[in-house]
Amino acid sequence: MDLSYDGTDFAGWAMQPGQRTVQGVVEDALATVLRAPRVPLTCAGRTDAGVHARRQVAHADLPTEVYDDAAPHLAKALSGVLPRDVRVVDVRRAPDGFDARFGALWRRYAYRVADTAYGVDPLRRHDVLWYRHPLEVDDMNLAAATLLGEHDFAAFCRRREGASTVRSLLRLDWTRDAENGFAVATIVADAFCHSMVRSLVGALLAVGEGQRPVQWPSEVLAGAVRLPDVHVVAAHGLTLEEVAYPPDDELSARAQLTRRRRELAT
Amino acid sequence: MDLSYDGTDFAGWAMQPGQRTVQGVVEDALATVLRAPRVPLTCAGRTDAGVHARRQVAHADLPTEVYDDAAPHLAKALSGVLPRDVRVVDVRRAPDGFDARFGALWRRYAYRVADTAYGVDPLRRHDVLWYRHPLEVDDMNLAAATLLGEHDFAAFCRRREGASTVRSLLRLDWTRDAENGFAVATIVADAFCHSMVRSLVGALLAVGEGQRPVQWPSEVLAGAVRLPDVHVVAAHGLTLEEVAYPPDDELSARAQLTRRRRELAT
Repeated sequence: MDLSYDGTDFAGWAMQPGQRTVQGVVEDALATVLRAPRVPLTCAGRTDAGVHARRQVAHADLPTEVYDDAAPHLAKALSGVLPRDVRVVDVRRAPDGFDARFGALWRRYAYRVADTAYGVDPLRRHDVLWYRHPLEVDDMNLAAATLLGEHDFAAFCRRREGASTVRSLLRLDWTRDAENGFAVATIVADAFCHSMVRSLVGALLAVGEGQRPVQWPSEVLAGAVRLPDVHVVAAHGLTLEEVAYPPDDELSARAQLTRRRRELAT
Repeated sequence: MDLSYDGTDFAGWAMQPGQRTVQGVVEDALATVLRAPRVPLTCAGRTDAGVHARRQVAHADLPTEVYDDAAPHLAKALSGVLPRDVRVVDVRRAPDGFDARFGALWRRYAYRVADTAYGVDPLRRHDVLWYRHPLEVDDMNLAAATLLGEHDFAAFCRRREGASTVRSLLRLDWTRDAENGFAVATIVADAFCHSMVRSLVGALLAVGEGQRPVQWPSEVLAGAVRLPDVHVVAAHGLTLEEVAYPPDDELSARAQLTRRRRELAT
């Protein structure tokens, strides 16, 4: 299923006892609509508290007969049961070997920033960060270009014991939105380690306001250690926009490859 | 001053005792920043409860010395004091003869509708209506074209004793937003009577879903009486986008003309 949500009132994707999470709310809705026991959802990007999604992808393993019975009315039934801050945009039977997490080729995020003196357009204040200093998009793009490719992004990741922080950064650039003037970063990688997008954006904003030189983010990357001067920017400016998968006949191979890489890393 | 607000948590523009209104909140902020007695604000479009604005225009009469003292830091001071759901985008000394209400040449509104089965993108649910039936934009445009020009819009107005309902509808058309597929109406008139935009949109949506024929809105207009079958659509899809004024040297003449017309009408 493809999911869209406003992260404002969620404690992130992942289920946590006593917290309102996207996973919890959607698993509840699915159990209600299917009149079946709850099944766990696996998603492509485990978004943090406050982070939004326009096309999150998640899968669940259901008995064939349960799915087939529900399929004709499943999307409509879910939209009737779910709260307005999360929508199931599309739901369908997954091809053989599909895994929303390990099968993904890349994830695309957007980070939106308003650098106008008066603040953010009130209608966009839930998904756009207000930055109080004017930003030089050209400088941010020069700095961003030095970060592309496969690197150990340890300097931009919240360390998790034994997990690899090597990732392939496929795209990172900033544009000005023609309609409303926001500075919008597009960030694509095979996968992201924890807080990576928001740390990269934080480093580039420091360049954009002229507080740091253009070469600073690449120096931080080369250092391979987390520095307190790399600011992890607020969650609410971040939206997971798209997840890409290979053609159906390559899904299993891709998932196996990803699993093996993650195991090697630990 | 140019104002932008999210109407969700406001009981409209106009001050009402015991209610949170845009006028009330901005007048409070102005008095705080100027450390001066409260002065009334006059706006271009007195938006209803729940209606948003991206470029509302309002004026206040201040003693010259109070304004001159505050001017250099006024916009910044207001943005510091105001809540995040209302922003002063710009503030400046008005030219002689300026009147935000009677001087305006026209007002432009947008009404946004999502007609997708799953509902509205959660991040836009505060300013986009969810319409459960697919809409034919071409049919809505054929119907809209028949309403253009100067007419008595009594059929689309909530009657106020003695007030004229003659208005010039300068533009009314629908487009599909390329990015997110919303149907967006652009509505421009010299002025609007109460509930006029939302009644016009309601009539056109009935055409768009195929419930009424294309000629129906013009028949309603010709009837000049309010019908219960014209639905006044929800406030939250509506945003005041722009207000236009004549060149400075024509401001006084325009304001006098508008006042005279309104008096003739009563």
